[in-house]
Amino acid sequence: MNPTDIPGRLDRIAREDGALGAFWQVDAAGALAARPAQGALRGLAVGIKDNVDVAGLQATAGLAAFRGRVAAADAPCVAALRRAGAVILGKLAMHEGALGATTDTPGFGRCINPLRAGHTPGGSSGGSAAAVAADFVDLAVGTDTMGSVRIPAAYCGVVGLKPTAGLLGRSGVVPLSPSLDHLGTLARTAAMAARGVEAMVADDPADSGFRPAPAGWCAVPNAPAEPAGLRVGLPQPVLDAAMEPAIRAAWMAAAAQLRRIGASVVPVAMPAWNPTAARRAGLLLIEAEAAALHPALIDDPRAASPEFRAALAFGRDAGTVRLVRALFHLAEVRAAVLRALDACDVLLMPTAPQRAFPHGMLAPVDQADFTALANIAGLPAISTPWPAEDGGLPCSVQLVGRAFAESLLVGLVQVLCTDHAPG
Amino acid sequence: MNPTDIPGRLDRIAREDGALGAFWQVDAAGALAARPAQGALRGLAVGIKDNVDVAGLQATAGLAAFRGRVAAADAPCVAALRRAGAVILGKLAMHEGALGATTDTPGFGRCINPLRAGHTPGGSSGGSAAAVAADFVDLAVGTDTMGSVRIPAAYCGVVGLKPTAGLLGRSGVVPLSPSLDHLGTLARTAAMAARGVEAMVADDPADSGFRPAPAGWCAVPNAPAEPAGLRVGLPQPVLDAAMEPAIRAAWMAAAAQLRRIGASVVPVAMPAWNPTAARRAGLLLIEAEAAALHPALIDDPRAASPEFRAALAFGRDAGTVRLVRALFHLAEVRAAVLRALDACDVLLMPTAPQRAFPHGMLAPVDQADFTALANIAGLPAISTPWPAEDGGLPCSVQLVGRAFAESLLVGLVQVLCTDHAPG
Repeated sequence: MNPTDIPGRLDRIAREDGALGAFWQVDAAGALAARPAQGALRGLAVGIKDNVDVAGLQATAGLAAFRGRVAAADAPCVAALRRAGAVILGKLAMHEGALGATTDTPGFGRCINPLRAGHTPGGSSGGSAAAVAADFVDLAVGTDTMGSVRIPAAYCGVVGLKPTAGLLGRSGVVPLSPSLDHLGTLARTAAMAARGVEAMVADDPADSGFRPAPAGWCAVPNAPAEPAGLRVGLPQPVLDAAMEPAIRAAWMAAAAQLRRIGASVVPVAMPAWNPTAARRAGLLLIEAEAAALHPALIDDPRAASPEFRAALAFGRDAGTVRLVRALFHLAEVRAAVLRALDACDVLLMPTAPQRAFPHGMLAPVDQADFTALANIAGLPAISTPWPAEDGGLPCSVQLVGRAFAESLLVGLVQVLCTDHAPG
Repeated sequence: MNPTDIPGRLDRIAREDGALGAFWQVDAAGALAARPAQGALRGLAVGIKDNVDVAGLQATAGLAAFRGRVAAADAPCVAALRRAGAVILGKLAMHEGALGATTDTPGFGRCINPLRAGHTPGGSSGGSAAAVAADFVDLAVGTDTMGSVRIPAAYCGVVGLKPTAGLLGRSGVVPLSPSLDHLGTLARTAAMAARGVEAMVADDPADSGFRPAPAGWCAVPNAPAEPAGLRVGLPQPVLDAAMEPAIRAAWMAAAAQLRRIGASVVPVAMPAWNPTAARRAGLLLIEAEAAALHPALIDDPRAASPEFRAALAFGRDAGTVRLVRALFHLAEVRAAVLRALDACDVLLMPTAPQRAFPHGMLAPVDQADFTALANIAGLPAISTPWPAEDGGLPCSVQLVGRAFAESLLVGLVQVLCTDHAPG
């Protein structure tokens, strides 16, 4: 792949991002001065979510309390991207504290979906998805605690890849919930998202969740995926869930396409997984872990929005019995997914129950109902756009696989659909 | 192996157990009427800790609240033992609620160490260790949340095996802390303990922690272990810890023996593991999980001892922030063990810092400091007796291995020392 025209991208950002707000900080000088390493991402334009440290740039996590904070050093995943040749263009918009999925962030501004004016790009990695969809960057780094890479990828019509828990070390990333936080990538193609994840793999002794990948692991498939004989599960709790009709139609079309190319596609029961209850249990864990990590934010009205502080206060005050019950529930859900993936090779479902909606509308509570599953189970998941039958904003479907099965998921997206360029 | 003389064992129990109190319920009629299956344990005498369900027998967990409770069905692990030919002789003494390590249980009585009158057998599986040491049974089932199989095995001079987390389904076992609870076995030889664990493996869909063993897994080695070239780590935090001189001498003798037979034995740093802090964090998790599982016990003075109820009340009232910090600490410890086991094949350390002590003495706080590590990390561990240089009560050393490396641990114990019959 040829290196990207970095000055051209910077020009485009300067011209177009005023209307979008995907970037919170553009490092034009740094990008133009970069001497990209000879690696898999040589000369490609990369944007980084604003909760990941890039040396010399701000790292606010969208929290007023962290405004003005400048990272002294690259996070290990960013250093790994540079070793692979990435050119870092700057820091991308995100939902406040990575807790929420509209990227309408008090004091930092609204990020706009490049596919439709006035609409949310989703979140929390909303700027990451918008920057990819607007062709500002070839690759964006996001974080995903209950769906924060895949939901904005879905809303903006790009690919989102959240790899297996532990694969990508999270030092230098502002933590929200270490039990559920993952790094991930967004790009216009599954192959590019996979190259980004591969490039970010680096030892991270300071992250207790880091686990070395098994020998021979890769994210970019070595050969085209072979769907014949593959067992694809459609989770019954998702079949039973409410969603936009266009979303359901896109999901069924993707299932039909997999059948057509030889996979066996069957419902899987998963009675222990109630998407609403699981998302709520996950949210309590997030609130409790965030409260333990960021106690100073809770009682300082200048530190964050009332909503963010209330969420952490709820976690702080919920009590151990309530938290333990949530953890027990999450363990049941995890066991249910692992059992489902004994019977199936992958699970196929929509990424989110809805498409992008206008800013200012109350965010649907179920945005993360389908994505949270892969965080709870620590399993890899990829979301890919799928055209809407009504011709409107794109839909998106999601594949969840076994631990370290990234290359199968990426290969399936490649055969499932020609990778869609946004809009 | 020949079937055991079941009537002879029952006679011995009738004659000798009055002084020991290893059994809380002997099922002589059931044992004599048993028609053992043709399996790996055919006709062997087995005792079951009183927190594991055996159809028709009591299952009290040593809690006053559960006195009179009779199990309607066998726990899956007990059913699996019967399928392997085990003859169940009855239910064994344990520390109240499996939370503690002396087996001096209010309202149920003291279990006495068969090796020395008036001394504790350890706990919480004290009756399991005593029944094996007294030759009442060939195999005993115990449970181990921070060391409750291995500590009594150590105090009573027998072998204790706590397998990998998830290998043995725990349905039908009174839970204390699902995050840390494990089933395990006690026997006079490592081979017998391993046969017991192998026999207990059975699917358990109701236990969200159950994980199928990898293909080809076994606990009984297929061939003698080959220590040449094996890397054995001595954790520096244990080298730095306080312990009885005889315990340290036994540990060093076992290390020297491993060196003699070809292993390389080296200290491993593990700075993130502070055994005291890790045990305390584990204890808080236990208290919080037990409080969530058994809320009715906390405020009912007739349900359990003041000490037990106070522990659960502490867990209930500790608050989410304190619990989350404990969980973060445990994650750091887990990461430290996994890193140590990247550099080493096994870790070698004492089982407990002390030998059996007289009943009535205040229990040392550090009993589980060395054993809790394997529960926190979910890794297999085996404890084996080692003669004391002072000729007194036996010492014990413990090997901790990688997930599902049971057969390596068992094989090493076999070559490390002739299996010791209790003194």
